[in-house]
Amino acid sequence: MRQLPNHRWVGAISADEIGPHEYMVYAWTDTLATWRRDTQVKHAAGQNIDVELEEGSLLLEAVAARIKGSAAAKKEKSASLKQAAEILRNKYLPDETRLAAVEAAVVLEVLDTHPIRKDVSSSAEMPLWVDRPRALFSSWYELFPRSNGGFEGTTKRLAALSDMGFDIIYLPPIHPIGVTDRKGRNNTTIAEPDDVGSPWAIGSSLGGHTAIEPSLGTFEDFDALVEEARALGMEISLDYALQCSPDHPWVKEHPEWFHHRPDGTIKFAENPPKKYQDIYPINFWPPKDEDRAALWSACRDILEFWIARGIKFFRVDNPHTKPLAFWAWVIRKVQAKHPEVLFLAEAFTHPKMMARLAEVGFSQSYTYFTWRVGKQELVEYALEVAQGPASDYMRPNFWPNTPDILSGPLRNGGPAVFRLRLVLAATMSPSYGIYSGYELYENLPARATDEEYLNSEKYEIRERNYDAPGSMVPFITRINALRRAHPALQQLHNIVFHDNPNPHILAYSKASDDGSDVVLTVVNLDPGRWQETTVNLDLGALGVDASQPFTVHDELTGSAYQWWGPHPYVRLEPADQPAHIFSVTQGAAD
Amino acid sequence: MRQLPNHRWVGAISADEIGPHEYMVYAWTDTLATWRRDTQVKHAAGQNIDVELEEGSLLLEAVAARIKGSAAAKKEKSASLKQAAEILRNKYLPDETRLAAVEAAVVLEVLDTHPIRKDVSSSAEMPLWVDRPRALFSSWYELFPRSNGGFEGTTKRLAALSDMGFDIIYLPPIHPIGVTDRKGRNNTTIAEPDDVGSPWAIGSSLGGHTAIEPSLGTFEDFDALVEEARALGMEISLDYALQCSPDHPWVKEHPEWFHHRPDGTIKFAENPPKKYQDIYPINFWPPKDEDRAALWSACRDILEFWIARGIKFFRVDNPHTKPLAFWAWVIRKVQAKHPEVLFLAEAFTHPKMMARLAEVGFSQSYTYFTWRVGKQELVEYALEVAQGPASDYMRPNFWPNTPDILSGPLRNGGPAVFRLRLVLAATMSPSYGIYSGYELYENLPARATDEEYLNSEKYEIRERNYDAPGSMVPFITRINALRRAHPALQQLHNIVFHDNPNPHILAYSKASDDGSDVVLTVVNLDPGRWQETTVNLDLGALGVDASQPFTVHDELTGSAYQWWGPHPYVRLEPADQPAHIFSVTQGAAD
Repeated sequence: MRQLPNHRWVGAISADEIGPHEYMVYAWTDTLATWRRDTQVKHAAGQNIDVELEEGSLLLEAVAARIKGSAAAKKEKSASLKQAAEILRNKYLPDETRLAAVEAAVVLEVLDTHPIRKDVSSSAEMPLWVDRPRALFSSWYELFPRSNGGFEGTTKRLAALSDMGFDIIYLPPIHPIGVTDRKGRNNTTIAEPDDVGSPWAIGSSLGGHTAIEPSLGTFEDFDALVEEARALGMEISLDYALQCSPDHPWVKEHPEWFHHRPDGTIKFAENPPKKYQDIYPINFWPPKDEDRAALWSACRDILEFWIARGIKFFRVDNPHTKPLAFWAWVIRKVQAKHPEVLFLAEAFTHPKMMARLAEVGFSQSYTYFTWRVGKQELVEYALEVAQGPASDYMRPNFWPNTPDILSGPLRNGGPAVFRLRLVLAATMSPSYGIYSGYELYENLPARATDEEYLNSEKYEIRERNYDAPGSMVPFITRINALRRAHPALQQLHNIVFHDNPNPHILAYSKASDDGSDVVLTVVNLDPGRWQETTVNLDLGALGVDASQPFTVHDELTGSAYQWWGPHPYVRLEPADQPAHIFSVTQGAAD
Repeated sequence: MRQLPNHRWVGAISADEIGPHEYMVYAWTDTLATWRRDTQVKHAAGQNIDVELEEGSLLLEAVAARIKGSAAAKKEKSASLKQAAEILRNKYLPDETRLAAVEAAVVLEVLDTHPIRKDVSSSAEMPLWVDRPRALFSSWYELFPRSNGGFEGTTKRLAALSDMGFDIIYLPPIHPIGVTDRKGRNNTTIAEPDDVGSPWAIGSSLGGHTAIEPSLGTFEDFDALVEEARALGMEISLDYALQCSPDHPWVKEHPEWFHHRPDGTIKFAENPPKKYQDIYPINFWPPKDEDRAALWSACRDILEFWIARGIKFFRVDNPHTKPLAFWAWVIRKVQAKHPEVLFLAEAFTHPKMMARLAEVGFSQSYTYFTWRVGKQELVEYALEVAQGPASDYMRPNFWPNTPDILSGPLRNGGPAVFRLRLVLAATMSPSYGIYSGYELYENLPARATDEEYLNSEKYEIRERNYDAPGSMVPFITRINALRRAHPALQQLHNIVFHDNPNPHILAYSKASDDGSDVVLTVVNLDPGRWQETTVNLDLGALGVDASQPFTVHDELTGSAYQWWGPHPYVRLEPADQPAHIFSVTQGAAD
């Protein structure tokens, strides 16, 4: 531990295993160090230190008596201390000689390994949960398997997604979809006979949360998909959406798990005046406690079922509309058996609730990144998630788009803005993700009044030509490769902003823990035209000596520039590239 | 309680009694309010609300069944509800009529007093200690009784100090002073035979912490002093300094309460290389626990002794050098019997330790005000003590000077700077104090290297002519009268700064809780020359309507100015007055 100002100490713990840990902090008075400091100060001030040296000899003898280890080591070490103690006590020697006896390397080594700890006090036992690295650093890709030829077709796409550098393929619910009040294309209330419905209307006569929609394939197909992902070093993430279509088996088997109305019907989901007739919310607090216990166990069993089939990361739908007590219970319960299992909270709600979800156990959280567009709001938000009060336990996941959110400049936006938003997501946050279609610049909104996509894939099948020329695939591939190559980009807390006067240019850097890897990103936030500026670099944050030249290699273009001093000039033309992603090294360019 | 953004709620508690309290926060779902809001939204959207109205009628009947009170009231109230429930259920009536049945005043009144609380949850029991008002709002004056003719002379001075507006007269230790290693004038190590010694070298053959230095007077004289203060609405505060001179009776009676050295001597106080041979620190953790218990009880008995003689506010010397555990114990113990007793912590140490002392029980704390001189540091510090993390439990006390601290611009400074620092202390903080001599502009430092006064009163008697013409007495009298007249100045959290471009002009306002009293202070921080500026007023903080004129009455000069809009011009000539202290009222000047 090292001391910061104002009685604060900081230290780092590293854990060898994932799962539960506990730590305690001990504090004590280091009697010998205090004695050494005070005695040296008094000696330097010319004061008589006879009594102090006598005190010191007693301290050394006390240590000598307490030495542990083999008999030989014990004898040797205590002999050194006793010898030093005798010199300290010898008034015929000059003070310098007596003081020096304590400073001998061998004595210091013994004192260091056998400190005299007085006034020992300790903190409470502090819980610490250690996750596997992907909880912090992950690249997500969301796709609807039904638009990709079911599990079989999706399995075939995995190699391409792996080549693009994604780690986690997240699938919306894969369960049988209800038919009662099924939504039609573009969220119409009357479905045509061939409409496929929303995957979030979970459950039909074919089964519920532990069944598979037959049009996607069989369990064998699903297992093959999970296995292929594993073979490629990726993983499949499923959607954990705790809600039921009116046709879900639970509705008949366990009516007590739902909300009832005076006319005998079950309450469907609504956010007045909006109605979601195809979805019944679950009542997590049924009147009888045995019903609650059975319901919560059934919800846990869903997770256990898919964990047994190889799923280790769940994307959780709207967790903030279910009780925090449930999440605290189910996550703890599941992770006690399976510490490798992780949970991503899809909660777009008040900051306090999002932080609470992280606090009770969620491993990652969606964020407001989608709605942070301007320079100042990006700076503030990045600092909030990286260094704000919740940053010790909430890990952000930046998504430029989701099937629910086509927002801001992406609406009718061109390739420049799609590249720009991807660079921001992928370099500001160690975890980020995109929803498929992003690489094809899908940009058509359903309406001006909300953030839905036109012909949303939530209600229909969308086939795409991912090999279309001019797509973003090569760009994304490059960005993901960069993220893997640079430890600096795999951390959350290390972002530092570098000021510059242009309101369209954002500059920030990240350095790895050991300082050996430094990445400086300079982004043109204006997709419409070139922007230029002189940046005011914080050279300390870049690990650069101000009196020497340094080199920045643009990892997007391969160019290298030699800079000297804190005020380099940059110019970015969005048609060519939205950003510089520089690796920074001291010394002249090659 | 009212809602703030981000799931935060705020409420106020007022207590009728001083002493210990507990509070809890309950939260619940207001089923009826939720039903009313949702049903109205659905009705406004033209949806069928038959089932909702049926739900509403059941809710009203549920309330009707739960009404408490006299049989008559019960009958009447439940009849109104049942009638409303019937109307709700009557499908032959139009929706508007049915909805209106719930909105009838008599129904709403019953619902308001008999809410349906679902999902009730509660916080832990939260402790709350309520102090008497002087814990927050107090004006202190420190004097050495030996320089004022002992207790008798001091008693005679009280009327003048009361006229000046002080509430609390704080006396350095009044106990017998040790003779062994007594310090001489100006802190020399060898005292002359007639040197009086430092009052903080407590204890001699004449007694310890419960005895009185005979040269100050008798217990009867002391009682007369306390009684005269009480009669004038003031109080006497004693110094609680837990340390002993080598001649203190405890040294012989309880050697186990001190630190011992190998040569058989007791350790005196030191801060190497500085030595305080006239003071023995107490060892609050003697090896045997029964010794610790006896020592702590003896320390508590000192407080009980003086409380029995009418002392209700102790100024505690260097509490940060004694264990927090001791303070937590002794303050709780004493206040359990005497909830009116208060403690001022004289701790000038790290912010974290100062906050901890407040947290474990101290009622007020000395601050760094003495060293905050520049505009920016004054703004930051005032906001930290008023609104920072510790401001919920730490009450600051601003002292421009103390017997230990003649600092910054006061050193060799003139009357202008003495007035200026007094205005800042007295208007930024609800509690402030001065050490006597301030009103006579005593400004001579002992040396350039520390903050001691020349010929410090700590080591000698200083007689002063408090009636000297040109003294600050009238100015201080005016300031203290202002503080008593303006509730706005008696609060801590309410300070608001108003920006202006002049680095020497500081403007801040305070408003009383109900907004009826608003004080705007504008200070010229430059004692050397006039300064002028245009202030950017936050009119909202002043409770002023921007579209109307408002009047500022200068309470120091009696002048009034009519202002309109947020950018008034101010000019302050330090030779005339260091500051405007304006009371602000809407409307034109008389």
